[in-house]
Amino acid sequence: MKSALPKVLHEIAGLPLVCHVAKAVRGAGDCDIALVVGRGAEEVKTAVDRVSPNVAAFEQKERLGTAHAVLAAREAITRGYDDLLIVFGDTPLIEDRALIEARGKLAQGFDIVVMGFRPADPTGYGRLIEANGNLIAIREEKDASDSEKSINFCNGGLMAVSGKHALALLDKIRNDNAKGEFYLTDIVEIAHVQGLRVTAVDVPVDNVIGINTRVELAEAEAIWQQRKRRAAMLAGVTLIAPETVFFAHDTLVEADSLIEPNVFFGPGAHIASGAVIHAFSHIEGAYVGPNAEIGPFARLRPGADLGEKAKVGNFCEVKNATVAKGAKINHLSYIGDASIGAGANIGAGTITCNYDGYNKWTTEIGEGAFIGSNTSLVAPVVVGGNAYVASGSVITENVPADALAFGRAKQVTKEGRATILRERNAATKAAKKAAK
Amino acid sequence: MKSALPKVLHEIAGLPLVCHVAKAVRGAGDCDIALVVGRGAEEVKTAVDRVSPNVAAFEQKERLGTAHAVLAAREAITRGYDDLLIVFGDTPLIEDRALIEARGKLAQGFDIVVMGFRPADPTGYGRLIEANGNLIAIREEKDASDSEKSINFCNGGLMAVSGKHALALLDKIRNDNAKGEFYLTDIVEIAHVQGLRVTAVDVPVDNVIGINTRVELAEAEAIWQQRKRRAAMLAGVTLIAPETVFFAHDTLVEADSLIEPNVFFGPGAHIASGAVIHAFSHIEGAYVGPNAEIGPFARLRPGADLGEKAKVGNFCEVKNATVAKGAKINHLSYIGDASIGAGANIGAGTITCNYDGYNKWTTEIGEGAFIGSNTSLVAPVVVGGNAYVASGSVITENVPADALAFGRAKQVTKEGRATILRERNAATKAAKKAAK
Amino acid sequence: MKSALPKVLHEIAGLPLVCHVAKAVRGAGDCDIALVVGRGAEEVKTAVDRVSPNVAAFEQKERLGTAHAVLAAREAITRGYDDLLIVFGDTPLIEDRALIEARGKLAQGFDIVVMGFRPADPTGYGRLIEANGNLIAIREEKDASDSEKSINFCNGGLMAVSGKHALALLDKIRNDNAKGEFYLTDIVEIAHVQGLRVTAVDVPVDNVIGINTRVELAEAEAIWQQRKRRAAMLAGVTLIAPETVFFAHDTLVEADSLIEPNVFFGPGAHIASGAVIHAFSHIEGAYVGPNAEIGPFARLRPGADLGEKAKVGNFCEVKNATVAKGAKINHLSYIGDASIGAGANIGAGTITCNYDGYNKWTTEIGEGAFIGSNTSLVAPVVVGGNAYVASGSVITENVPADALAFGRAKQVTKEGRATILRERNAATKAAKKAAK
Repeated sequence: MKSALPKVLHEIAGLPLVCHVAKAVRGAGDCDIALVVGRGAEEVKTAVDRVSPNVAAFEQKERLGTAHAVLAAREAITRGYDDLLIVFGDTPLIEDRALIEARGKLAQGFDIVVMGFRPADPTGYGRLIEANGNLIAIREEKDASDSEKSINFCNGGLMAVSGKHALALLDKIRNDNAKGEFYLTDIVEIAHVQGLRVTAVDVPVDNVIGINTRVELAEAEAIWQQRKRRAAMLAGVTLIAPETVFFAHDTLVEADSLIEPNVFFGPGAHIASGAVIHAFSHIEGAYVGPNAEIGPFARLRPGADLGEKAKVGNFCEVKNATVAKGAKINHLSYIGDASIGAGANIGAGTITCNYDGYNKWTTEIGEGAFIGSNTSLVAPVVVGGNAYVASGSVITENVPADALAFGRAKQVTKEGRATILRERNAATKAAKKAAK
Repeated sequence: MKSALPKVLHEIAGLPLVCHVAKAVRGAGDCDIALVVGRGAEEVKTAVDRVSPNVAAFEQKERLGTAHAVLAAREAITRGYDDLLIVFGDTPLIEDRALIEARGKLAQGFDIVVMGFRPADPTGYGRLIEANGNLIAIREEKDASDSEKSINFCNGGLMAVSGKHALALLDKIRNDNAKGEFYLTDIVEIAHVQGLRVTAVDVPVDNVIGINTRVELAEAEAIWQQRKRRAAMLAGVTLIAPETVFFAHDTLVEADSLIEPNVFFGPGAHIASGAVIHAFSHIEGAYVGPNAEIGPFARLRPGADLGEKAKVGNFCEVKNATVAKGAKINHLSYIGDASIGAGANIGAGTITCNYDGYNKWTTEIGEGAFIGSNTSLVAPVVVGGNAYVASGSVITENVPADALAFGRAKQVTKEGRATILRERNAATKAAKKAAK
Repeated sequence: MKSALPKVLHEIAGLPLVCHVAKAVRGAGDCDIALVVGRGAEEVKTAVDRVSPNVAAFEQKERLGTAHAVLAAREAITRGYDDLLIVFGDTPLIEDRALIEARGKLAQGFDIVVMGFRPADPTGYGRLIEANGNLIAIREEKDASDSEKSINFCNGGLMAVSGKHALALLDKIRNDNAKGEFYLTDIVEIAHVQGLRVTAVDVPVDNVIGINTRVELAEAEAIWQQRKRRAAMLAGVTLIAPETVFFAHDTLVEADSLIEPNVFFGPGAHIASGAVIHAFSHIEGAYVGPNAEIGPFARLRPGADLGEKAKVGNFCEVKNATVAKGAKINHLSYIGDASIGAGANIGAGTITCNYDGYNKWTTEIGEGAFIGSNTSLVAPVVVGGNAYVASGSVITENVPADALAFGRAKQVTKEGRATILRERNAATKAAKKAAK
């Protein structure tokens, strides 16, 4: 990955790879998770704890192969589980239904279940060698006969193993090979020789994609996004140009909402039914209420909480603020650490001055209030219900309900002065030029 | 569609599906349109009237098959037309040239013309059975023999029927089938048996795509956009990244204009020759004059009318405003309900305060005027030609031509006070923290 | 191209087609460049001079074929070079490694090297006829036998020719063909007949794509962008959605930086390691320092120079300005012709009023200064280190270090007045309506 960050902490849809895997495992039924990590164990555990608290983490100090990695979690395996799912932190697109299918096979009496896939071209992959309905070996490309090479059912790497046999089988894997490593794939032949029942399930190719470069990371992100977009559309969300809408891992969009092209969701967004998200919007950690309208060119940051039919228009940023039913923030405004009452109208260029360089303060705008354009609301400040603030004001003191407030200088107009100014400035320009 | 909205009112390129079909029909020559609608008849008729006024609408009260639907318009058919085009409201990508070809065949003496297509895989489609240059039947998959299944010329559903035979043929269609429905496709065999001449025309696959889910809606939108982008480029418009430019159904872009990536057109946009639309622009109901320059991050809303070489720059919104030749609105401004004279310069952060909470008012800026940055123009207000408004002013009264106006407070500077303030604020911060 | 602009001056990645070719030629080793131009010779030479100064330009006054075009540069050829690369200005995706390979073949003793490619379908292309390891002819489709038509190794048009034979061979090409033109391809057969050694090198199809329409221009741009995106990712740059990031020809992005979807680079951008470019950013002629953070919705224009950990946030524009380490410009600001000291905080809606309608002036903000929201800084102006400017101020005079400055009117609040205003405005509205 050419990165200082451990590979499994690179993200898809705003969530580390390893967390996608943990979510799929959780989705496949009750379980405990044991995490084997090489580099950056502490960081990786912290990340996984976010989606599945209290995982047991084990460090693999030397890198001696996949079976060696699994045995780094020996302590967890010995606790005695019914079954064991062996998955990889860099295979983020595995779906819970594939894992459920594999666990189901164990429940039917199989002892080992390998997740296989059927690529367009199997060259280079380990082939799954089956006989009489059982998987008898995984054959690497270099060891495969011509007829074996023609098999296009390949080893996806992931596995489910019966709990009662797991440890004994894993301990039988040897490292008498060219690289001196312990390969998990050897477990298939060992189990078969012992008369245990081994099988493979057929999972979609994308489920077993591994990530080793940022090109592959981007490809996996694209597949994840396609899945999510398709699911959203089938659930009743209109995406005019699905390929330009980027969801986060937890984005929630209700039916009969409309999303225009070029919308980006960071984590924590929830869009209610009937809402319209116009083009070029950026939404993170925010709730958009029923029939609300956002953008184009709007940014909702964490804590933005928009009521029914609220509007946030172009070049507006809303952060940590409640915008009640029908309130409008239509143009060029920054609303942060604030509450805006129902039906209030926030004029173009309004800014809540929420930070004084040291502390953050809040702004409260009452129901039906009108804030004139280009107003600075110096927090902490309260503008009461149905109050009216004149355009261009700097508001530093509270405005009672129904009051009118202004804080702007009186206009002075000097006839003919622009002509004089123009002449003077033209002279300056000429002097500047001459000086060069 | 999982939608409260009738299917044919979902949109492609900002126009309801059914209106795309009506436009294609209109494009295929003089005609009257009869509309058969199940759900939402009133809404659908209103939509179609926008592109083809005064259509006759008929309600299909029960859903008893495609022929039953056509006969819901019996009253229209009996009026006696030369020919009849039968098209579907959810087949929005039909092109007028396909319809023209079908009508042409009728003119050559055929009595029925079926629109056929050749899919990559015909499985599941009705096959067009031809003999001696005539179409003799449409065979459904389940009734097809093996040799018929190998035919890849399939029924696209749309049809042209000779006016003099139409009603008699339609009335012969029976519903003695599993579902008890009247199928329009039966008309082919009925006509053939009577010795009438039936044929099929070969239309591109995309012409007969039907829409049943939002996934299919998005796919159809993508095809429509590709057609439009390609046509624009071949006509001399440069699109750096065509796949990121979204046109509306009526967007007009003249030759030798340049559109950068990520531009969205809503309905009613017209871009003149030589104009440059920079990335991240959103344009709807607006005219952009020759050699004008827009964006990046510009939004033109309905009624924006930009003259030659006018400029609207980043984070600017223009609505219902004339911007004359060479005028510049370069940064962070909102110009609404206004006229800006030729060569005027509107400074960064200028806002026309056009709404007082009750009424909208207009702003007029004369030729060559200079509006300093961060100015609020409280409408109604007029700034004369070559007038000069100082930065940070709130302008509430008219400014005569050549006059200088300012409306801002005098600066007060208190030496050393920031140090005191910092200490005080740091104390507040500490207190806040301690209170937690 | 349907364009007033000469074809080779249309751009890919912000650089004219012909300059891409010149860069590839330069990349293939020391050389002089001779430019043969038909229309717009002066403009084309000026463009090429930008990437390869002092090219010799020759005008082809009549259009009598490719060999005739090459001979327009007879004066250059007669100077006596070791070898001659013949490339076309409208084949912009040729890579230097292909040219290096061709020159290498000349160095090995071949006299002519043709650049060939293998298309999926060779129909329509000139086939490369080989015998005994030599290329003996280029056969046009219309003259090809059936067995020759089955050859899928085709003529890419580009060529390398030994310097000592070049002129003699070119002069032997005749125009006794249907169009009466001198075809460069004839050189192969002429050389072969003379017993000279001719060969072909196999270059990727995309290397020899010629541009004749804006559709082809867009396709070539897409290929160029894919190459660049892939190279960036393999070098350690994370692109969440590579297909939405548009690079310029000279964009420099260091490893372990992150680029979100929908980012556009104009020429001259340099992004340092650890920087994060959020969605919807537009960057041109700017440097973004290590671990700096940009966007979403940020625009950096030429001369923006951002230090380590600097931040430029949403709806901000920075032009010709230094932003030192850790300084923040987070919301809705225009900073032009300025220097911002380390750790300074620029409040939302701050505008440097750098243009007075005649001249541009600079703004200097000291280290640790705090500029309150909605401030207008009327340049030329200096705000000292750790100074504090109150929100909503218009600053026209210098502010010393550690001083507090404000320039805003005092707030006036009139109780109950909003109610009266509302009644009055409602009356106006009613009157307006009645007048219609």
